[in-house]
Amino acid sequence: MASSTNLAQAAPAAALDEQPRAGDESRAVYFFGDGKADGTKDMKAVLGGKGANLAEMTNLGVPVPPGFTIACSRCITYLREHRIPDSLRAEVADALRHLEQVTGKNFGDPGKPLLVSVRSGAPVSMPGMMETILNLGLNDRTVIGLERASGNARFAYDSYRRFIQMYGDVVLGVPFSQFEHLLAAKRMTAGAATDAELDEQTLRNLVEEYKALVRAKTGGEFPMDPEQQLWGAIEAVWRSWTLKKAVDYRRVNGISEELGTGVNVVSMVFGNLGDDSGTGVAFTRNPSTGERKFYGEFLINAQGEDVVAGIRTPLSIDEMADRLPEAYTELRATEDRLEKHFRDMQDIEFTVERGRLYLLQTRTGKRTALAAVRVANDMVDEGLIDRATAVKRVAPEQLDQLLHPVIDEGIRAPALCTGLPASPGAASGMAVFDPDVAEQRAAGGQQVVLVRDETTPEDFHGIVAAKAVLTARGGMTSHAAVVARGMGKCAVVGCKAMSVDLQHRRFSIGDEVISEGEWITVDGANGKVYRGDLPTTPSEVVQVIRGTRNERTAPNYRAFARLLSWADEMRRLKVRANADTPHDARIARGFGAEGIGLCRTEHMFFEGDRITAMREMIVARDEGGRRRALAKLLPMQRGDFDGIFEAMDGLPVTIRLLDPPLHEFLPHGGEESKLLARTLDVSRADLSRIVESLRETNPMLGHRGCRLGITYPEITEMQGRAIFEAAVKAKRRGIDVRPEIMIPLVATLAEFENQRAILQEVARQVLGGMGEDVPYTIGTMIELPRAALTADEIATKAEFFSFGTNDLTQTTFGLSRDDAGRFLPNYIDRGILPDDPFQVLDQNGVGKLIGFAVSAGRSVRPQLKVGICGEHGGEPRSVKFCHTIGLDYVSCSPYRVPIARLAAAHAALEPTRPAQTTS
Amino acid sequence: MASSTNLAQAAPAAALDEQPRAGDESRAVYFFGDGKADGTKDMKAVLGGKGANLAEMTNLGVPVPPGFTIACSRCITYLREHRIPDSLRAEVADALRHLEQVTGKNFGDPGKPLLVSVRSGAPVSMPGMMETILNLGLNDRTVIGLERASGNARFAYDSYRRFIQMYGDVVLGVPFSQFEHLLAAKRMTAGAATDAELDEQTLRNLVEEYKALVRAKTGGEFPMDPEQQLWGAIEAVWRSWTLKKAVDYRRVNGISEELGTGVNVVSMVFGNLGDDSGTGVAFTRNPSTGERKFYGEFLINAQGEDVVAGIRTPLSIDEMADRLPEAYTELRATEDRLEKHFRDMQDIEFTVERGRLYLLQTRTGKRTALAAVRVANDMVDEGLIDRATAVKRVAPEQLDQLLHPVIDEGIRAPALCTGLPASPGAASGMAVFDPDVAEQRAAGGQQVVLVRDETTPEDFHGIVAAKAVLTARGGMTSHAAVVARGMGKCAVVGCKAMSVDLQHRRFSIGDEVISEGEWITVDGANGKVYRGDLPTTPSEVVQVIRGTRNERTAPNYRAFARLLSWADEMRRLKVRANADTPHDARIARGFGAEGIGLCRTEHMFFEGDRITAMREMIVARDEGGRRRALAKLLPMQRGDFDGIFEAMDGLPVTIRLLDPPLHEFLPHGGEESKLLARTLDVSRADLSRIVESLRETNPMLGHRGCRLGITYPEITEMQGRAIFEAAVKAKRRGIDVRPEIMIPLVATLAEFENQRAILQEVARQVLGGMGEDVPYTIGTMIELPRAALTADEIATKAEFFSFGTNDLTQTTFGLSRDDAGRFLPNYIDRGILPDDPFQVLDQNGVGKLIGFAVSAGRSVRPQLKVGICGEHGGEPRSVKFCHTIGLDYVSCSPYRVPIARLAAAHAALEPTRPAQTTS
Repeated sequence: MASSTNLAQAAPAAALDEQPRAGDESRAVYFFGDGKADGTKDMKAVLGGKGANLAEMTNLGVPVPPGFTIACSRCITYLREHRIPDSLRAEVADALRHLEQVTGKNFGDPGKPLLVSVRSGAPVSMPGMMETILNLGLNDRTVIGLERASGNARFAYDSYRRFIQMYGDVVLGVPFSQFEHLLAAKRMTAGAATDAELDEQTLRNLVEEYKALVRAKTGGEFPMDPEQQLWGAIEAVWRSWTLKKAVDYRRVNGISEELGTGVNVVSMVFGNLGDDSGTGVAFTRNPSTGERKFYGEFLINAQGEDVVAGIRTPLSIDEMADRLPEAYTELRATEDRLEKHFRDMQDIEFTVERGRLYLLQTRTGKRTALAAVRVANDMVDEGLIDRATAVKRVAPEQLDQLLHPVIDEGIRAPALCTGLPASPGAASGMAVFDPDVAEQRAAGGQQVVLVRDETTPEDFHGIVAAKAVLTARGGMTSHAAVVARGMGKCAVVGCKAMSVDLQHRRFSIGDEVISEGEWITVDGANGKVYRGDLPTTPSEVVQVIRGTRNERTAPNYRAFARLLSWADEMRRLKVRANADTPHDARIARGFGAEGIGLCRTEHMFFEGDRITAMREMIVARDEGGRRRALAKLLPMQRGDFDGIFEAMDGLPVTIRLLDPPLHEFLPHGGEESKLLARTLDVSRADLSRIVESLRETNPMLGHRGCRLGITYPEITEMQGRAIFEAAVKAKRRGIDVRPEIMIPLVATLAEFENQRAILQEVARQVLGGMGEDVPYTIGTMIELPRAALTADEIATKAEFFSFGTNDLTQTTFGLSRDDAGRFLPNYIDRGILPDDPFQVLDQNGVGKLIGFAVSAGRSVRPQLKVGICGEHGGEPRSVKFCHTIGLDYVSCSPYRVPIARLAAAHAALEPTRPAQTTS
Repeated sequence: MASSTNLAQAAPAAALDEQPRAGDESRAVYFFGDGKADGTKDMKAVLGGKGANLAEMTNLGVPVPPGFTIACSRCITYLREHRIPDSLRAEVADALRHLEQVTGKNFGDPGKPLLVSVRSGAPVSMPGMMETILNLGLNDRTVIGLERASGNARFAYDSYRRFIQMYGDVVLGVPFSQFEHLLAAKRMTAGAATDAELDEQTLRNLVEEYKALVRAKTGGEFPMDPEQQLWGAIEAVWRSWTLKKAVDYRRVNGISEELGTGVNVVSMVFGNLGDDSGTGVAFTRNPSTGERKFYGEFLINAQGEDVVAGIRTPLSIDEMADRLPEAYTELRATEDRLEKHFRDMQDIEFTVERGRLYLLQTRTGKRTALAAVRVANDMVDEGLIDRATAVKRVAPEQLDQLLHPVIDEGIRAPALCTGLPASPGAASGMAVFDPDVAEQRAAGGQQVVLVRDETTPEDFHGIVAAKAVLTARGGMTSHAAVVARGMGKCAVVGCKAMSVDLQHRRFSIGDEVISEGEWITVDGANGKVYRGDLPTTPSEVVQVIRGTRNERTAPNYRAFARLLSWADEMRRLKVRANADTPHDARIARGFGAEGIGLCRTEHMFFEGDRITAMREMIVARDEGGRRRALAKLLPMQRGDFDGIFEAMDGLPVTIRLLDPPLHEFLPHGGEESKLLARTLDVSRADLSRIVESLRETNPMLGHRGCRLGITYPEITEMQGRAIFEAAVKAKRRGIDVRPEIMIPLVATLAEFENQRAILQEVARQVLGGMGEDVPYTIGTMIELPRAALTADEIATKAEFFSFGTNDLTQTTFGLSRDDAGRFLPNYIDRGILPDDPFQVLDQNGVGKLIGFAVSAGRSVRPQLKVGICGEHGGEPRSVKFCHTIGLDYVSCSPYRVPIARLAAAHAALEPTRPAQTTS
């Protein structure tokens, strides 16, 4: 079957959907078989997910090979005490006797040998653990019994050599590759292409050679005693809990070290006993599309590992109706029953042994976002689940998949290189290396991908013009990444293998060179970059939002919108969008934004001839000169605000005053400087002197934010005027305008008061002069630790707070997001940081500051409106934190609004934990 | 007399030395005269300083002209209610009647006119307030009485015209300059060089012209009614409380707006009634040297304002013994009595009217640091004050004056330009523009001043070699400023008028050009830069500390050391020094440092060929290459540590691991790069690629601090090895070594643990291998908000905290100290910030974080040692804060250790305030 690597991870929340039920601590072993089991599906914490579901299926009467599960707690005990208690040995012995009784076979009995599989199974699905040992119980004597029982000597010895190989590797520590060498030698000697062509005698010889290998490597014989084999395997499962890969996974995913893993010992069934046997995997619904149709693959005469190995091409599950009709009928009845029982799409493994069906495993099926949304909708309609459950079933982050075009699944061209998947979606275009060229070519109707070392605000128009952005430097929150995500535009950043040669307008990866004009395709979902123009599919949801497709012809959109409407009923937290233009505002509203939480006015200055007026202001010699330039910007900015107010009719619009340092608006040398000097009628020497004088050592901590408005009050005045004039203009057209003016980078109350006084005076002049009253508020962005620390002072005057968590994270950590790429990935790899704090809000540090500021602010102004407008506003775990500490809203890029809506609902649905008592 | 502008401000603490005693709130007017007064010196809060001391002198029987004081509270009432209550009018009227009775003169009586002066006087000495109106009570009729009483018509009309001019300006708002125009016209008509040459008739005419001017400007007559005049003057005094200059001064100095000013109405005495009259100012001791000798100046036949105007040259007070012998004898007896009574050096104003002495004012005299220290010593010896009082009498910041050479007072060459006085002292040298040239010339025995746009760590050797540093850019805490202060080296920074032309090796200020090799003199005490080699005087204290002068020949040093030894007995807070070399450590110990609080290991890497090894490490291709380079650095660093341990025998030494980003060690282009490429045998292209790859957008927030040691553990290993090996080496010589290893820029516990594990392993290897036990601790620098916020986590493993308040201020404020110079001065000028937060610790924001971290840290480790090692460690207000929140020590540059010792004593002596109750 198709590997599941294309399927997104299921919501982690779903994995522990049901609250684990405590088991009996004194009991270590839980038996299942013969139609009844000691455990249930609600005992995942005790038995692990696999064990709990095997028990549940047994109780349901589903055909499951009998077996038993050793409780997870015993893993922890073993790892602490390094010994197996006698009581546990006794319990396992009892369970084995019970298993012998139920199966009618005996462990180590050459006549009717009982063979088992040993598999790990933790309470939470977790890669990195020991997987499976099959055919345990085989030895030189029982293999004969297996030969007799199966009537197939080749099968018996193949099973034996597989067991030795698997056990030798996993339990005894003999490298798997060394067994493979011996096997390969046999193939060569026999002139066999595959293992399947090796005959019985060869396999018998191979078994001896394997045993000799074990002897040579371990200094001892391969264990012949099945009990010894069993305990070896059990201990190996337990030890695998501490394998580095597993430890790392738990640390990164916040899984407790104290859970431990269960051990499932299950009697073997064989799908490889002939054409009346087989094995397969199936989903109760289509995991890619969510379609309500049984979906899966199987192989005749095969064992599980053959399916995974991919040597033979599996058949569609539909064909099983012909090939194994009885088993198929039972399988269909079983899968239907399992889905209804578990009330979720199931991913099942089964084996047919001589016509008889066995279920080996059932678990919640992983699915694409589309499937998740469709299944959630359908199951509500089918009465299987309620709306809250449907909402909880979809992982918020997954929704992103529904918004971005993807490269056609069929295409499997080799990637040129891989960078960071900064903004999902896929796009193709001709590589260009200059924002002006990008703009020109795009204006000429060409598709371009902007390729840069890294981008700056100067490149803005180039990003606007490009289909995608590709950079060699920068992290997930670099300028390119943030801007592209804000636009819902594909971006791959920090592609270190690339070497960009701006002079010759080309980039290279090793020997591969891509010159300007050559086509590349960028996949922002996985960070891959391809040569050529790979076909992509636009997202149905986005088509509807953009108005290029009718909702009636868009079932996926309808399912998406319906699920989110349920989420909206359940959440407390409002969701706004960060949007800087009327167009973005409309898109945001389409995605369900309940206002604009951050309108960055400076982005308006980068377009067209506005940048020239902006630059004129910057190079002006005095206030008069600045005011003349600002007068040119006023109508442009007023027009933008007017359009945004219109798009957000009836909803609040938070407008942030000019924030970046002025040098970001200036060209740094070259043709552009020459042209600018001519345009502004200053000497090139003067211009470069001005550029130089504005240069900053640490621009992040420099002359920016409200510091600009304090130094140049006329800028604040102009922006205030543009806001109030636009508000009046819109109001007169019947639009309900609700401006919230936000003063950036405030560190002290005095700064806030200074800017507020200017705005209030402008409001008095404009509103007074025009005879209109517009309700407005003035608040501040809390993005410096000092502002958070003095929130009780600032809130005496500020009417709202919006946490700018990007900058707040930078200053709290002392970490520049432009520079962090050099060591942050290494920090995360090594577990020094659990997550990139620019992606997932650091609750312990930055979050503590936010919590403090909220309390302090509300202590002096109980009705203080508080939101968040950093990148974290669209990240589910951060949204949950915002819900928990009582924020009023989160604001994120338009394309993340659906994610935030869903995450806010998840947060509201989560049971509130009782306050923890300190010991 | 010599103006007092050369004298440093007295300690602000001293101004309110005695706790103000509450007055009777119902009483508004306090009379003094005829040997007794309603007030006392302890009623400064009620009467203002001037009024309280006039009352005190009266009670002492000192001859003071009688008068009365209106309580300060009435100023506030008036400013709030904008009216004069009838009860106050009645009290003033009573006091006037009393005054008439005592003086035998009558207000408005042409026969025996009572004339008064009206002066402001707030509880705290404060510039910007209305000063004085003299001769109030004069009008067209009383002037005749004055003429008769004085027998001098010219005197009477001169007094009258002066009164109109002063009153017209201050009370009626007629510009002073317009009166001056009329006066100048009279001089021209009369052919007179000075006003003194104008005759009676001219003055009579002038009076009429003045009255006409008042009429024209105010539309009314100059008030003839003395009562109306008096209330006008009183209201003017009150209104002057709200003058911008006064408001600004109060805001900057943290003086309450609610104090208000008193109004002193005092009967006039005249020093200008002939040669048996005069006026003067005097100090009970020499305010420049502290010598116990009456010191002052006087003028015969003059009024107070004549002394200030400086038209006539005053005589030494000693000559008064001949000129006005009786008055002189009484003055000497009086000054002696006043000093004994007030137990501090007094600054007195007096007038002799026809042989009779009157004291017009006495107050605590401002003095130089030297005088402050000497007077404090002498007064203890004289039994006037106790040691605690002596310690409190000297302002910590003043001590700086005693440590730095000054330009000879006689020199008054015009300054080329003025920058920020970054590091006190004065030095001359030949201007050089390159650190290498500085080094070469200094090695050749030349004195040089390093002139740069701004300095970087690369310039370190140039700063070492130079006598002074002068930069065009940067603020009080720029690299140049910090490094220079750390060395006690003179620096003037941010000299904006300068234009530095590195290419031609010259700088210019307007048309003045100074080329390499020309002599300049830099005065770090006032920021002035002079052309030429101006003579300077080295500090006696520093000579003793450096061992170039014997203590026995240094009385100033002895007084200084004695005072500090008293301070040491009184303080709780320990004082350490920031020192990076054995030499600095010795100097620091000489200044009384009780350990090293910050040894910056990177400074060791900039010297000589160490930088080459350092660069070799940075450009190394792999860990092996880095280790080879580090092996070269190991013995050098070990040697430094050994020397420092020796200098600090028995005291703790806190060593900070490598902190700055690596690019700070690399050359940025030019000859040096070429040379380096050759030395390290890498291509220039490779070298510039490495330099480029290390470039950071915000180096302050970049790959530095423990982030380096985490990326390159071998650096931490080498530094740990150098520390432990040096410790063993020193210990074997019998030295008591106490290393404290400090991990910089920690944001998370995991970072700390990572570095700590490396150090512990190295310690195990080195100490184990050498068989020695050295007690050491591992702690961290708290310089990021996140570290402070998670102090309770970090303190579980860290044995000490040292607050790096420079960086903590940068991150808490989001303010780069390298860039803040562009707007911070403006912020302070406008009162948006009360102080430069890099100079004075921001208690409200940064301080809150520190307080939180101390509590959190000690909550998990009660014995946690906590100190501060930022620039603030030597700033008195910040030291006081450190004392208050319970830090164990402060650490500052060696030359600020005395300041910190004294400030710590002041903090300990300050009465702890009762907790404020909220209303």
